Amino acid sequence: MNIFTALPDLAELAHQRLDPAVWAFLSGGAADERTLRANTQAWQDLPLWPRVLRPLSGGHTRVALAGRELAHPILLAPVALQRLLHPEGEWASALAAAAQGAGFILSTQTSVPMQRVAQAVLGDAGRGPLWFQLYWQADRGFNQALVQQAESAGFEAIVLTVDAPVQGVRDAERRAGFAPPAGIHAVHLRDSPAPPTTAGTYCAGLPAHAPTWDDVAWLQAATRLPVWLKGVLHPLDARQAQALGVAGLIVSNHGGRTLDTAPATASVLPRVRAAVGDQLPLIVDGGIRRGTDVLKALALGANAVLVGRPLMWALAAGGALGVAQALRLLRDELEAAMALTGCRTLADAGPELVTAPAYHRE
Amino acid sequence: MNIFTALPDLAELAHQRLDPAVWAFLSGGAADERTLRANTQAWQDLPLWPRVLRPLSGGHTRVALAGRELAHPILLAPVALQRLLHPEGEWASALAAAAQGAGFILSTQTSVPMQRVAQAVLGDAGRGPLWFQLYWQADRGFNQALVQQAESAGFEAIVLTVDAPVQGVRDAERRAGFAPPAGIHAVHLRDSPAPPTTAGTYCAGLPAHAPTWDDVAWLQAATRLPVWLKGVLHPLDARQAQALGVAGLIVSNHGGRTLDTAPATASVLPRVRAAVGDQLPLIVDGGIRRGTDVLKALALGANAVLVGRPLMWALAAGGALGVAQALRLLRDELEAAMALTGCRTLADAGPELVTAPAYHRE
Amino acid sequence: MNIFTALPDLAELAHQRLDPAVWAFLSGGAADERTLRANTQAWQDLPLWPRVLRPLSGGHTRVALAGRELAHPILLAPVALQRLLHPEGEWASALAAAAQGAGFILSTQTSVPMQRVAQAVLGDAGRGPLWFQLYWQADRGFNQALVQQAESAGFEAIVLTVDAPVQGVRDAERRAGFAPPAGIHAVHLRDSPAPPTTAGTYCAGLPAHAPTWDDVAWLQAATRLPVWLKGVLHPLDARQAQALGVAGLIVSNHGGRTLDTAPATASVLPRVRAAVGDQLPLIVDGGIRRGTDVLKALALGANAVLVGRPLMWALAAGGALGVAQALRLLRDELEAAMALTGCRTLADAGPELVTAPAYHRE
Amino acid sequence: MNIFTALPDLAELAHQRLDPAVWAFLSGGAADERTLRANTQAWQDLPLWPRVLRPLSGGHTRVALAGRELAHPILLAPVALQRLLHPEGEWASALAAAAQGAGFILSTQTSVPMQRVAQAVLGDAGRGPLWFQLYWQADRGFNQALVQQAESAGFEAIVLTVDAPVQGVRDAERRAGFAPPAGIHAVHLRDSPAPPTTAGTYCAGLPAHAPTWDDVAWLQAATRLPVWLKGVLHPLDARQAQALGVAGLIVSNHGGRTLDTAPATASVLPRVRAAVGDQLPLIVDGGIRRGTDVLKALALGANAVLVGRPLMWALAAGGALGVAQALRLLRDELEAAMALTGCRTLADAGPELVTAPAYHRE
Repeated sequence: MNIFTALPDLAELAHQRLDPAVWAFLSGGAADERTLRANTQAWQDLPLWPRVLRPLSGGHTRVALAGRELAHPILLAPVALQRLLHPEGEWASALAAAAQGAGFILSTQTSVPMQRVAQAVLGDAGRGPLWFQLYWQADRGFNQALVQQAESAGFEAIVLTVDAPVQGVRDAERRAGFAPPAGIHAVHLRDSPAPPTTAGTYCAGLPAHAPTWDDVAWLQAATRLPVWLKGVLHPLDARQAQALGVAGLIVSNHGGRTLDTAPATASVLPRVRAAVGDQLPLIVDGGIRRGTDVLKALALGANAVLVGRPLMWALAAGGALGVAQALRLLRDELEAAMALTGCRTLADAGPELVTAPAYHRE
Repeated sequence: MNIFTALPDLAELAHQRLDPAVWAFLSGGAADERTLRANTQAWQDLPLWPRVLRPLSGGHTRVALAGRELAHPILLAPVALQRLLHPEGEWASALAAAAQGAGFILSTQTSVPMQRVAQAVLGDAGRGPLWFQLYWQADRGFNQALVQQAESAGFEAIVLTVDAPVQGVRDAERRAGFAPPAGIHAVHLRDSPAPPTTAGTYCAGLPAHAPTWDDVAWLQAATRLPVWLKGVLHPLDARQAQALGVAGLIVSNHGGRTLDTAPATASVLPRVRAAVGDQLPLIVDGGIRRGTDVLKALALGANAVLVGRPLMWALAAGGALGVAQALRLLRDELEAAMALTGCRTLADAGPELVTAPAYHRE
Repeated sequence: MNIFTALPDLAELAHQRLDPAVWAFLSGGAADERTLRANTQAWQDLPLWPRVLRPLSGGHTRVALAGRELAHPILLAPVALQRLLHPEGEWASALAAAAQGAGFILSTQTSVPMQRVAQAVLGDAGRGPLWFQLYWQADRGFNQALVQQAESAGFEAIVLTVDAPVQGVRDAERRAGFAPPAGIHAVHLRDSPAPPTTAGTYCAGLPAHAPTWDDVAWLQAATRLPVWLKGVLHPLDARQAQALGVAGLIVSNHGGRTLDTAPATASVLPRVRAAVGDQLPLIVDGGIRRGTDVLKALALGANAVLVGRPLMWALAAGGALGVAQALRLLRDELEAAMALTGCRTLADAGPELVTAPAYHRE
Repeated sequence: MNIFTALPDLAELAHQRLDPAVWAFLSGGAADERTLRANTQAWQDLPLWPRVLRPLSGGHTRVALAGRELAHPILLAPVALQRLLHPEGEWASALAAAAQGAGFILSTQTSVPMQRVAQAVLGDAGRGPLWFQLYWQADRGFNQALVQQAESAGFEAIVLTVDAPVQGVRDAERRAGFAPPAGIHAVHLRDSPAPPTTAGTYCAGLPAHAPTWDDVAWLQAATRLPVWLKGVLHPLDARQAQALGVAGLIVSNHGGRTLDTAPATASVLPRVRAAVGDQLPLIVDGGIRRGTDVLKALALGANAVLVGRPLMWALAAGGALGVAQALRLLRDELEAAMALTGCRTLADAGPELVTAPAYHRE
């Protein structure tokens, strides 16, 4: 693999290596890509206030999440069809995640069987959580079967994606003429209706089979696993989910791939945290590129973060090794950011890290 | 016609196909084109807040306007001399509008006789409204004759343009040396004074024959058709029009073609809605390029939107078929935006869609 | 002369024609040219609110200034050494100003004798005011002699420049190595110390001979002409000048040529107007390029505007004819802006033209 | 040396002359260089309000600092390994500083022995202060030995850097592959552990040996010299330092080299001044490029400023002479800025210089 010094560098390495249509599928966003760009920009625009001369001895990046202690708060976001990026696909990225102590969320549209991914990961004592992401299918029975397979395979939570009742306006993908090549497909969806993220035409009539709050309740009853919702942005939706007893929320705009001009997750996160109080676990994704971004996310109330595209660029550029190096680099940057803001542990990271102190004489 | 994936793509297709001076006439704006750019930018800058897991079954894009139910809230803006863009001119764009259930407003400066346009459209049961736009002429008798022709031809409303008492500072047009070629002219204005949108010198002394509020009252009395005013931006003007009993207002800055640095319509619309209350029909135009823009317009109080330049680019690029495809695409994007914001119908679209929820714990 | 459609176009025409060092002298600003750019930008950033359907018949651009009625509110700013730009220098620009009814302010550093300029102008019944700009010289006697020459020659006011106690940081000029060529010099300063705008080193020790408030009082006593101050930005300085009984103020930052990062005049003008009340005449300059800019200046409280660089570009590009055409164009644009904002006369232009109306329902 | 007209010009001159890796080491910042750019931008974005007609006679740039009167408020920031830039390194820059009456802070990582630097400077009666910058080393004894050497050599204060407990994310440096060439090293650190600013890997575990508040107290007891802290941004840290009785603070974000997205020093300075009251000496650095920047810093509460990169560019471009010319130029610009804002002395520079006066009629 080529050398890289920071996650943003991986974009160019992956771009050179991938088919242009696959690149567009992976890295593009909805419509004019305003939300895609805003996600990254919003983290960078937040100021981070240094603190000095605090005791840092014994510091670490460990966090508690879902009843476990994780080595650090970084998880891999669910991404479809990772064999488009590297022959070993989800198997390689899951392996790298486990090696670096990072959690891993497998997409419904995985191109490697979920059992094979689970086998690669479950034996690693240092691994992070292993979760299964669910795209709601019109047939409840099919959903149930998928979830049961995931349970049997050893997955530890179900992550229901709620922000994609229809395909977004994927202009970049359509301009590039993206279609999965023969031999790479969503292995668990072979006999099911076309999944929502397959390129194609828009909704013909508004979708009648998108999931609703009732389906969330059904899903909670249908599995013994904790159920997370992914794609909640509005504080009122967050409260409704909380009232249903979900395990946690992933504050996400689907990486800017569905509704263009949806607000950046960095601007939404503190509103959601304020709405749900201190106890409900929140994970945020969208635009995280730097250790400083991770620290800001935790300062604004997230318990952990998902990283998607940059780690997929790493997969394309260097397979499992690339993903592992990128994760290590991001965690190193997080450690540096903690030291420079006087945080011995991530419990020290509160909103005051990203808030200008009042300008006043006392 | 070349393939396009979104309305903004049509600009380049049309640019390649059109004479540079015609391109400048169609796509340019006043002076430094600040308002032209601000119109587009302002819609994009508005955030759109997703909502999730709501029931979407049976959803649709229908709206009520002027006593009818329309399939969707998109109408074609009046544009002069469309035969400059395509040999079939207004006939083609009106046909496409009807085929897609879109309303159509014919310009005073039509290059196809109004009767021929009306015949193409009136027999289509699925068509939207057919209205006639009026540039006030110095001679009241001439205005009356034009309006009577429109009534006889089957037009259903008169849209009086009030924001162009003088020609704007059309630098782009003048730099390109635009003049209509022989054989393409405003067919209903052959014997009248030069219309305000013909390129030429500015006002010599301020215009003595621009329409006034008294002329609006005269026009209302002179026709049995409802009278709309197009080009109202200031809330006080909107109230004055409301007091005169106009049928509705088109909130517009003439597509950035008259007064440069006039505010973007997206920023003005909520002020006008607040000024006139809930009942007066409002249509907005200027910078609408995406289904998300249409949804934002309705969220801010518009009952419908006009689209001008993008559909004219489509006319230049592909004739009636191009216009129809562009309309279909815009409506598809609107449907996707509705689904992603949890709107089953457009009645669900209120200001909260574009307003950040309060940041507070309760 | 080449054709131009708007004043900004003249920059390129002049740039092509002038020696690079003269171009830098004319068009450059202080240091990083932040104020130079901010001046232009600030006018453009102000919104202008259209009003419709108002009676415009009998409208005109006339204003009262200094006890006279002027055809329009545009005056030529004092600019040094205009023979650098065109062989006929100040004589040509003054002639063009008079032909267009524009006022003219002759610089202390004129390259044409003041008497010759006055003779060209005074006989024209339609001319605007003819004023003499004074750079304070260390020797009071020399100042007195200059002012007496101006009185005798027929100049009607003295404009004391107060914002240049030292040369600005003229990096553009210095990089270009500007020095006036042989044969072009400040004709009334031949035997005096080097004037402040000659390129050279900065102050060696802070300047001991810059004018003070006492010198203003002395000047008022030393001449029978009204005394204006040019270069006042701070409201407290404006009040102090008002207390001394000056004839009026020119709100100016010397066209961005002295103190870089000084605020744009468009942002300062309303503060100065608020500080001095309604009666004291105010003229503003800096960045005026469009008729809309002129209208905004009057809306914010100016009685008239000065235009400098654009008319000097016109002088370089086309001599007296160029200046006259540029003035006519600017006035035409002003008329169009008035019509589109419903101003029959400039007395109708108040702060509400550039202020967003309140967003409320009543 | 090539001619330059302003400090920003020196960047290009140095860039041409230096090895690309050395250029990256000198001029790069942390991560995406947001703070690096923000530092410069923030000074430029502050408006500076001119004042006119005030008496300027006898004006000067003198300030009191640390019990002395300095000719002007500009000091050279500590920069490591200056022999990378010029064979004479710190000796040349210290000599130039003394010749121009500027203070000089020698880095712990000096490439010229501190005794040789001190000898070059101490005999110059017009010189500014000579201080020694300390990077805390894990071994207290080593720190003590360094400080005692500095005392013996004649240094007059110790400046403890507190904002670099870990190396920043120096991507520019790492991309360029920077490593000091043979023969240029930190002469006083030969036998010590690798200093924090040497390129290398990040913290492996959070740093156990970074200095703490207790170490500051130890250092104050261990030396008879006044102790300054460099790298304080947060007002609460400033107060804690004040409570410990430090001699003064340097408000700094390490020139954007440690924590990217830390706020610009221009935005932080007034908060720190408000927190510590009027008495504690404050110096600010980061992004100072112009005399107007220096004046703004003093207006916002600084007693003096440090300048780093621009003077190092001057060292690379022209050795001691280059540094001296750059200092003279900056001081000349400061004088011009003072004259144009009506400041006879720097005691006249208060917050009102950079604050828009209220907009009101009285």
